[in-house]
Amino acid sequence: MTDIEIAQAHTAAPIEDIAAKLGLSVDELEMYGRGKAKISPRSPGKGSGKLVLVTAINPTPAGEGKTTVSIGLADALSIRGRRTALALREPSLGPVFGLKGGATGGGYAQVVPMEDINLHFTGDFAAITAANNLIAAMLDNSIFQGNPLGIDPQSITWRRCLDMNDRQLRHIVSGLGSRDGVPREDGFEITPASEVMAVFCLASGIEDLKARLSRLVLARTYDKKPVTLKDLNGTGAVAALLRDALKPNLVQSLGGTPAIVHGGPFANIAHGCNSVIATQAALAHSDITVTEAGFGADLGAEKFIDIKCRALGRFPDAVVLVSSVRALKSHGGVRKENLGKEDPEA
Amino acid sequence: MTDIEIAQAHTAAPIEDIAAKLGLSVDELEMYGRGKAKISPRSPGKGSGKLVLVTAINPTPAGEGKTTVSIGLADALSIRGRRTALALREPSLGPVFGLKGGATGGGYAQVVPMEDINLHFTGDFAAITAANNLIAAMLDNSIFQGNPLGIDPQSITWRRCLDMNDRQLRHIVSGLGSRDGVPREDGFEITPASEVMAVFCLASGIEDLKARLSRLVLARTYDKKPVTLKDLNGTGAVAALLRDALKPNLVQSLGGTPAIVHGGPFANIAHGCNSVIATQAALAHSDITVTEAGFGADLGAEKFIDIKCRALGRFPDAVVLVSSVRALKSHGGVRKENLGKEDPEA
Amino acid sequence: MTDIEIAQAHTAAPIEDIAAKLGLSVDELEMYGRGKAKISPRSPGKGSGKLVLVTAINPTPAGEGKTTVSIGLADALSIRGRRTALALREPSLGPVFGLKGGATGGGYAQVVPMEDINLHFTGDFAAITAANNLIAAMLDNSIFQGNPLGIDPQSITWRRCLDMNDRQLRHIVSGLGSRDGVPREDGFEITPASEVMAVFCLASGIEDLKARLSRLVLARTYDKKPVTLKDLNGTGAVAALLRDALKPNLVQSLGGTPAIVHGGPFANIAHGCNSVIATQAALAHSDITVTEAGFGADLGAEKFIDIKCRALGRFPDAVVLVSSVRALKSHGGVRKENLGKEDPEA
Amino acid sequence: MTDIEIAQAHTAAPIEDIAAKLGLSVDELEMYGRGKAKISPRSPGKGSGKLVLVTAINPTPAGEGKTTVSIGLADALSIRGRRTALALREPSLGPVFGLKGGATGGGYAQVVPMEDINLHFTGDFAAITAANNLIAAMLDNSIFQGNPLGIDPQSITWRRCLDMNDRQLRHIVSGLGSRDGVPREDGFEITPASEVMAVFCLASGIEDLKARLSRLVLARTYDKKPVTLKDLNGTGAVAALLRDALKPNLVQSLGGTPAIVHGGPFANIAHGCNSVIATQAALAHSDITVTEAGFGADLGAEKFIDIKCRALGRFPDAVVLVSSVRALKSHGGVRKENLGKEDPEA
Repeated sequence: MTDIEIAQAHTAAPIEDIAAKLGLSVDELEMYGRGKAKISPRSPGKGSGKLVLVTAINPTPAGEGKTTVSIGLADALSIRGRRTALALREPSLGPVFGLKGGATGGGYAQVVPMEDINLHFTGDFAAITAANNLIAAMLDNSIFQGNPLGIDPQSITWRRCLDMNDRQLRHIVSGLGSRDGVPREDGFEITPASEVMAVFCLASGIEDLKARLSRLVLARTYDKKPVTLKDLNGTGAVAALLRDALKPNLVQSLGGTPAIVHGGPFANIAHGCNSVIATQAALAHSDITVTEAGFGADLGAEKFIDIKCRALGRFPDAVVLVSSVRALKSHGGVRKENLGKEDPEA
Repeated sequence: MTDIEIAQAHTAAPIEDIAAKLGLSVDELEMYGRGKAKISPRSPGKGSGKLVLVTAINPTPAGEGKTTVSIGLADALSIRGRRTALALREPSLGPVFGLKGGATGGGYAQVVPMEDINLHFTGDFAAITAANNLIAAMLDNSIFQGNPLGIDPQSITWRRCLDMNDRQLRHIVSGLGSRDGVPREDGFEITPASEVMAVFCLASGIEDLKARLSRLVLARTYDKKPVTLKDLNGTGAVAALLRDALKPNLVQSLGGTPAIVHGGPFANIAHGCNSVIATQAALAHSDITVTEAGFGADLGAEKFIDIKCRALGRFPDAVVLVSSVRALKSHGGVRKENLGKEDPEA
Repeated sequence: MTDIEIAQAHTAAPIEDIAAKLGLSVDELEMYGRGKAKISPRSPGKGSGKLVLVTAINPTPAGEGKTTVSIGLADALSIRGRRTALALREPSLGPVFGLKGGATGGGYAQVVPMEDINLHFTGDFAAITAANNLIAAMLDNSIFQGNPLGIDPQSITWRRCLDMNDRQLRHIVSGLGSRDGVPREDGFEITPASEVMAVFCLASGIEDLKARLSRLVLARTYDKKPVTLKDLNGTGAVAALLRDALKPNLVQSLGGTPAIVHGGPFANIAHGCNSVIATQAALAHSDITVTEAGFGADLGAEKFIDIKCRALGRFPDAVVLVSSVRALKSHGGVRKENLGKEDPEA
Repeated sequence: MTDIEIAQAHTAAPIEDIAAKLGLSVDELEMYGRGKAKISPRSPGKGSGKLVLVTAINPTPAGEGKTTVSIGLADALSIRGRRTALALREPSLGPVFGLKGGATGGGYAQVVPMEDINLHFTGDFAAITAANNLIAAMLDNSIFQGNPLGIDPQSITWRRCLDMNDRQLRHIVSGLGSRDGVPREDGFEITPASEVMAVFCLASGIEDLKARLSRLVLARTYDKKPVTLKDLNGTGAVAALLRDALKPNLVQSLGGTPAIVHGGPFANIAHGCNSVIATQAALAHSDITVTEAGFGADLGAEKFIDIKCRALGRFPDAVVLVSSVRALKSHGGVRKENLGKEDPEA
């Protein structure tokens, strides 16, 4: 059976039942299609649950990696009766239509509804894309409308984005057509590599998000001063686009473990792990939270500790280092592992 | 009280109750946040309900126009005990942050949740944007990867889109950066002006949508033959992005009338009215369906009759011609009106 | 025999002898290779000679046209003992390598050295090209260096030029590469269509040329004021590049008639006839000056009368209207001709 | 007195007298304005004269450098009765209007007519510019006209050029405007940095030049094969543009020493010394030829020895290493000099 066949053969529990495992009532859910809900977590705080970080010795090309181990581990903990929650990243639409395939695990260690999660899910990436591009449009429009801030168009570092692998847009000249804009060299990122994605995933709430957005440096003035979103009076409009997206998404593993899947920055560019809000929500509503950090331990876990834990206010209680035989072979040596069975005791 | 204050002071009925007015059970709903649901209409067919088209003598700049009259008329019919449904367009995010403000009516003739509808709503525009841009990316990628179809890059008529007023992107040169793509003159539309929006709104179902998508002409080959989405083997992937978006959205008016709000092409460029699927769903589940056509009767209503009715398979049973005093003044003469009170008898 | 064979079989008189026919001594000549000289005409003034304008009923595609008639007419007048001079346009290098071939007449009515004249000649076009492009470089540099004049880059109407048919350069975006310039839509003309060519050909001398150059409007400031070459303090440098070019060039017809070939603006864009200085020199040093105006009488002759004669300060004493049988046929009727032999009596 | 005042106060000998010093008769001269002539050297061969190379310990910013020493040395040799000739580079127009000022020496060690040499001189740079740009136009035109050679536009390495410091043109996108060309990233060099300048200066005659031109690699085909000028059938047309320019130019120093000033490639990009043809002509018509190599000994002299001497077929008989006190100071140590007075004995 393929991953898709396994997922489709599975009958998922009603999302209300999954929410109940986290102590969340129906009133605390906003449904988004079948089997998906946004939650409004109470008093997130630091929570009292334990935090288990899954990382890997190195990035591996196939599905035996961190996400699968995270889900399998969480399901195993659930079976042993631990009140467990997963905190995972949302996949980007780009790689789905590109090379990599989805990012919802594999085999019997999947989160569902797989297809929905891999496509638009609850619209978070669309909102982040819109927010990012609204900033770009406001910036160019300010220059076009007499440029009251004295922004140097050639100093703009803010790039547009799309949640798509579209190499044709990486380097463009925009603002052509005589009088439609101000000609300049410009380009698009993929949404998981955008700066809005980064601050979105580090924010502890809407007020913190607004503060982080307002400080974003977009360009320089002709006299070399930084131009921030605050200078454009754009924070409110951008935050409005992100208001709903900021609520974490609840789905489930095939084993019925609640999975909070929220935020998805790339690890090579940004910090590569799910949102602070999602981890906080999982910690507040479970005894053990299993989460993962993108790429290998040297990059992803380091960023997790240095960047995310600082924003989160706490550190992992245990770390699982995934090391597949295939990966070890490719590195040419055998190393000691932090085994999964040790973690429940942590 | 402003429109926003009126809408916020209102306590909306549970969307399940609104669905019940259309004879739809909870199982036929997919919730999208609070007060919004996608519906899976049974046997849409032509329905047995009456169809009332609201149009106007001309486009007016303010809120006394077609949408407000449509909603008010539908609420009035509901009060008189008629099983009435609204079929309306989804607003674009672009004008919300631009000049025009939302498109959810005004005063006591509004559909709610106004703010959600005016922002991301159920993600339809994001899905249409992604579908449109996936086509562009596949087209450029085919040229970049050895160009097996012999596509002439300068013949490309397919444009990218964003649901945003971003004049900086109207005319660009894409594919720069040496080896990231093939340099060409390119540009972005706003999503309501995209061709995917047009075919989306004319499709009678997913199979018809696939057929319409597959026929889209994107470019010419060097020997002047048309290049369609089918030639790129792209129909399946694009349709997958639109699968959920194709289900019509159910919300309500302040008067509690079910409102099916789905699809939003601009009338100046496309046909300017809600999706065929939405009108079919309204007709199948109500006795009277009130719908509107964008712009004035000379353009919008003509397109409604010529284009949409052909796809829909039937014609309106009554037409309301909105004519405000302000609009008449601007035209410099008084004309006869089709009055609203005549319509219930139609 | 082809035109080239006829020209090559011909033994031209020493240019000093040709100059002597105009009453010019060797000291008044600056040689430029063999058979070409720049002259320094004494007291040009209006001269006392007669001015004969050759124009045509319409542009004809082949060599039986105005230039050939002009040269033939002048040679005929010389044979009859009249002290005659030709005043003709310099050909552009562009069409030489494009479709049209040279512009030095045909058959036994040619000016020589044909090949030299059709290539670089005495460097006038190169100087005009350099002057035109120095203006563009000064303009862009002023914007790049802090833009003290407040020039709006999108208002620039000044275009670069090359004396070459290079369609690839008609529409470009310049100033890319991050920090090498200011990105803007830009483009190249062919040199005969440049504005420097136009003012060069209307100038009566170096001081008049400087005055005309200084008034050239290149762009607008952000507050919509015109930006001239004078504002850039560029007149001196540009005039320096044109100093030598401004001296008219002396060659000869196969019949030994002195031919002053100088300046070459296109008639469809500019006024389409040789320089005022050349015509003045011919008039001052001969009894009859034969000159021509580009395109047909409706366009070229009208421009000659309206524009050039105003700068020249006098009008033609006779007009020859060339009308070939082939041209007449293509117009569908037979018309009366002003015959060449009538003109001497004019 | 400034350099200009010194030069203007000087009364130059007739160029015929200077030519006579080289044993050239008037018939072997083609005059180009006053005091400048192109020469047609007899049987250039390797000559029997001695070759003295002037180089420097390093590039110095001011006029006490190599050109001044070369001219002074040659004048000193002339005064001592040696039949001496200078072989020097032509200056670019670009730096004249940029920072560096002319390149005709300084003080009493100048070549004249300074102003003419620093401006258009005999049109060589204009011809090289036209030749270089004709190649670019033919290349783009071949792609535009159905691309029979299968040229990959993104593989083009051939750049256009202007003899002007115009940073705005360094990086452009050309071929815009829908149907005027094929959009691609493109750019301009300054003429002394062009590849036509390089092969022009290495050619031993017109046939060798044609062979070198025909081998120029301009781009690659889609299947990675090189595209040369020969493939475009363009060698003849390009060589025609260079025919006259290939003849070396004769001027004189203030001391009356014949100076053959011909070709001017930049030393940082190309080989940085005057044409092989000029050096051959000087060697054939004098006992001692003084020439110089651009930049310092480490770069310019090395290139002279490795590249030019190989084309020339012989090596210098003496080398003068210019080392100014100012330059030495800037390097922080005192070094031994090869003094000028030693060289006559070499």
